[in-house]
Amino acid sequence: MTAHVALTARAFGASHFVLADVRDEKVEATVAKVQKNWGGKLRFEMGKPWKRVVKDWKANGGVVVHLTAYGENIHSSDVLERIKATNRDVLVIVGSQKVPSEFFSETVSDFNVAVGNQPHSECSSLAVFLDRFFRGRELTMDFEGAKMHIVPQKHGKKVVKA
Amino acid sequence: MTAHVALTARAFGASHFVLADVRDEKVEATVAKVQKNWGGKLRFEMGKPWKRVVKDWKANGGVVVHLTAYGENIHSSDVLERIKATNRDVLVIVGSQKVPSEFFSETVSDFNVAVGNQPHSECSSLAVFLDRFFRGRELTMDFEGAKMHIVPQKHGKKVVKA
Repeated sequence: MTAHVALTARAFGASHFVLADVRDEKVEATVAKVQKNWGGKLRFEMGKPWKRVVKDWKANGGVVVHLTAYGENIHSSDVLERIKATNRDVLVIVGSQKVPSEFFSETVSDFNVAVGNQPHSECSSLAVFLDRFFRGRELTMDFEGAKMHIVPQKHGKKVVKA
Repeated sequence: MTAHVALTARAFGASHFVLADVRDEKVEATVAKVQKNWGGKLRFEMGKPWKRVVKDWKANGGVVVHLTAYGENIHSSDVLERIKATNRDVLVIVGSQKVPSEFFSETVSDFNVAVGNQPHSECSSLAVFLDRFFRGRELTMDFEGAKMHIVPQKHGKKVVKA
């Protein structure tokens, strides 16, 4: 699951991914392998305590967005516009079912955003949040340093060397 | 992972979910528990061979959409409009990294759609496809039969009985 979240972050335009609190060399290797083949410069970090990640982010002037089913609905509220209006770098935090209750408080999250107020998946939340945040432009980005590219096809698969 | 895909299907407006080829009682139980608490009528099926699922779908006049990084880009092509223009029920198929090569052929998939031409996650692909297909309206749907509802909050959690 964590690898899927990291690959979603990369594919949907994030520049940096932090796996907080724990280390997982398998996830790191998966991301490295994908970037070796398909390019991109997602910076991957792991093991840093989440409180430190948030504190440093805020100290550098960034805002923190927590994706949770309990937050303001991304479709029926103006929360996305308010996030963009801050004009600041955004740290998106997602967790599994059990996240610390502090995630919901103002001391941690400037915004709590619900990609629908129903339970589903941190992967889905992150993907839709970023798709809407970047207005879909992330889906046609060039990834620098790719060894190969997919050439979109109606049927079949086509990959060419970069 | 499969549970996340099933919950994504439910939360993003699908009416029916088929776990093809295999059975997984844990996934079935997870979906049942979510629907018991949060409502919804996602029909859950499992164990049916994928070829049978596709054949029956087509026999009933539906179209088949395969989500794959190799397909037509959902953002830079008109594939979504072409799917909608068929005005037929849509079966979305997603798989893990190893899907049968037949998935890419015209005999199975009427449309191969890429939610970006980069590797990521079947969860993310399904979520963004459905979000775009339903134009976000699915994120404010009412789920019939819910025991409780989330009341969206800027901070904290609020749940009320239905």
